Amino acid sequence: MATQDTVAELTTDDAPVKAPGLEGVIAVESELSFIDGQKGELIYRGYDIHDLAEHTTFEEVVYLLRHGSLPSQAELDEFRAHLQSERALPSPVMDVLRNVPDDAHPMAVLRTAVSTLGLYDEEADMTEEAANHRKADRILAQIPTIIAAFDRLRKGLDPVSPLDHGSMAHNFLYMLNDEAPGEAAEEIFDVCLVLHADHGLNASTFTSRVIGSTLSDMYSAVSGAIGALKGALHGGANQEVMRMLLDIDETGADPAGYVKERLAEGERIMGFGHRVYDTMDPRAAILRGMVKELSEEAGEMKWYEYTSAILETMKEETGIDPNVDFFSGSTYYQLGLAPDLFTTIFALSRTAGWTAHLLEQWADNRLIRPRAQYTGQHNRTVTPIEER
Amino acid sequence: MATQDTVAELTTDDAPVKAPGLEGVIAVESELSFIDGQKGELIYRGYDIHDLAEHTTFEEVVYLLRHGSLPSQAELDEFRAHLQSERALPSPVMDVLRNVPDDAHPMAVLRTAVSTLGLYDEEADMTEEAANHRKADRILAQIPTIIAAFDRLRKGLDPVSPLDHGSMAHNFLYMLNDEAPGEAAEEIFDVCLVLHADHGLNASTFTSRVIGSTLSDMYSAVSGAIGALKGALHGGANQEVMRMLLDIDETGADPAGYVKERLAEGERIMGFGHRVYDTMDPRAAILRGMVKELSEEAGEMKWYEYTSAILETMKEETGIDPNVDFFSGSTYYQLGLAPDLFTTIFALSRTAGWTAHLLEQWADNRLIRPRAQYTGQHNRTVTPIEER
Repeated sequence: MATQDTVAELTTDDAPVKAPGLEGVIAVESELSFIDGQKGELIYRGYDIHDLAEHTTFEEVVYLLRHGSLPSQAELDEFRAHLQSERALPSPVMDVLRNVPDDAHPMAVLRTAVSTLGLYDEEADMTEEAANHRKADRILAQIPTIIAAFDRLRKGLDPVSPLDHGSMAHNFLYMLNDEAPGEAAEEIFDVCLVLHADHGLNASTFTSRVIGSTLSDMYSAVSGAIGALKGALHGGANQEVMRMLLDIDETGADPAGYVKERLAEGERIMGFGHRVYDTMDPRAAILRGMVKELSEEAGEMKWYEYTSAILETMKEETGIDPNVDFFSGSTYYQLGLAPDLFTTIFALSRTAGWTAHLLEQWADNRLIRPRAQYTGQHNRTVTPIEER
Repeated sequence: MATQDTVAELTTDDAPVKAPGLEGVIAVESELSFIDGQKGELIYRGYDIHDLAEHTTFEEVVYLLRHGSLPSQAELDEFRAHLQSERALPSPVMDVLRNVPDDAHPMAVLRTAVSTLGLYDEEADMTEEAANHRKADRILAQIPTIIAAFDRLRKGLDPVSPLDHGSMAHNFLYMLNDEAPGEAAEEIFDVCLVLHADHGLNASTFTSRVIGSTLSDMYSAVSGAIGALKGALHGGANQEVMRMLLDIDETGADPAGYVKERLAEGERIMGFGHRVYDTMDPRAAILRGMVKELSEEAGEMKWYEYTSAILETMKEETGIDPNVDFFSGSTYYQLGLAPDLFTTIFALSRTAGWTAHLLEQWADNRLIRPRAQYTGQHNRTVTPIEER
């Protein structure tokens, strides 16, 4: 095995390498995003996440991830116009949403709705790059409509038709609440989308590339990725953070005492630490400032105060820094989103990354297929059933 | 790097290993199936595939894969009874099938229907092992109903309600054709299901384990696996074999000449060679004999004759042996299945493997998550949009 800081490339002459969970194995090359866990840096296509969050919108970031460069004004206008034109759902997909049980898991609904969209897209099995860009636009444009329609239907409200103008952030909050969002709300939601758009080869992005590598279609890959993101080890952490904050709020507990008590009982505090960051998740730093701003605008500082107190207590007691999930939970809550929708917002944003990774995968495809080591029995012979 | 025939285990202190497509990397241990490519051996849980094909039924093999041992008569009776009781689809899933366009891709329909089933299973998000066995039963029992109903609806026929008795093979052919299959047809179809039930860590099985490893649910994992199997590099080969046979039949071409012409043009003959077998795929050998039997029973030898001539020509010209897809295509066709359903039959059978692998994954779970090597740019700064 090679020494630290180098990369050993496996050739077909080498013996198999066993890497449980594939930790430490490089499966693909990617030009999309780079994480420096030591420095706390996240980069999309060469741009620092702080720079993008401050100076670009989600649509520009999607364009950047997919095309490799930020759009000119004319390119952005054309891209936004196409996304706007694709927001409405085919009526059979809306029918599926109308029939879904009110208590269905929102991620299972989203997985099913995206899979169903594939049945009504005549380009679903077209493999040309241009067709794949159009499909990526469609999926990205329709996911917000799915989430908002499902949430309203389960509340007994009529779905709100998508706007034919405005940003994805604006349109989504409008469809969800049937009123135009305030400027700060729209801006912070847009930043949330930027922050979650891509993050290396996480489990759902890896899923989309594995499915895509069989030369299956984009609907198969994205619905599979949604299924992976649904898992408790992947997409659900910000929802858990919000449960904790609501618990503190409802019981009137002192946040610092609450944390100390949980730690003393050996429990994990959700929203802290990250497999790839040794220091503060850069996305958490960006969101923290915006949560404060949003709270001030709403005249409701309690969520900001709870998170600040928990953050300080965790720093004192454990030295562990918060991750992006720690702040996105209370942000989404203040924007009027039910906690069980948080993971669907993650999916909405990460669709940018999933589809960009698929386009990258297909540009130079190779089947992604590791091996299993057989640890089972040998040399058994079938006994007739009456003798078993 | 270690020498051949040994396995080097990667530790977290080692440098990353780069393995494009993950070839030569062992991602998981598994007791389910073992392939000896040199010897042409396929083993499920220690039993040779020839032994299982000859002496067991598909239901026994599913039980074996899931539980590690072949069932006693009482265990088999109970298992079959549960499968039989779960065959009917929830009415909203049948509604989805009624609304699907007639020309929809059958694998996209199956992916969507299985995802939809998850919305109507109250146990969908239960994580207990017993609940996962029940869900595996349900998915396995309902997939044949989905395929048969979809095929009949697109032909303008009413779906046939599932039987409350009989084997999966019997019931499926009955639902598809609205008449009980002949004994030979049922037997050969059952053997096809046995032969395709598991095959190491292929791309769709790997997909199901990746999705499962996030602790997502069985519907997410199986619908994702269906999406992966849909890909042209994975599940579609037997359909291509049948297209070739139909082309030979319709044009009246001489099969040997047809093959030689294609080879001279540098084209690939589908159904030959396999990444993991250096010799004849053992499943192909089993099926070949059965195709002959089925043809004799039907009094129609032409498909058998075409395949025999192609097989011999390929052996003479290239030395390459056929794989299982080469024979399953004409088998399914003679059983009355439309070529575009072949991959759904593969899915029906492989659901046995997918769900058994999920149970194995969850018994000792570890997130499956490799890395990407960033090959993109660094140190870019956002230019204001008006200057781009």
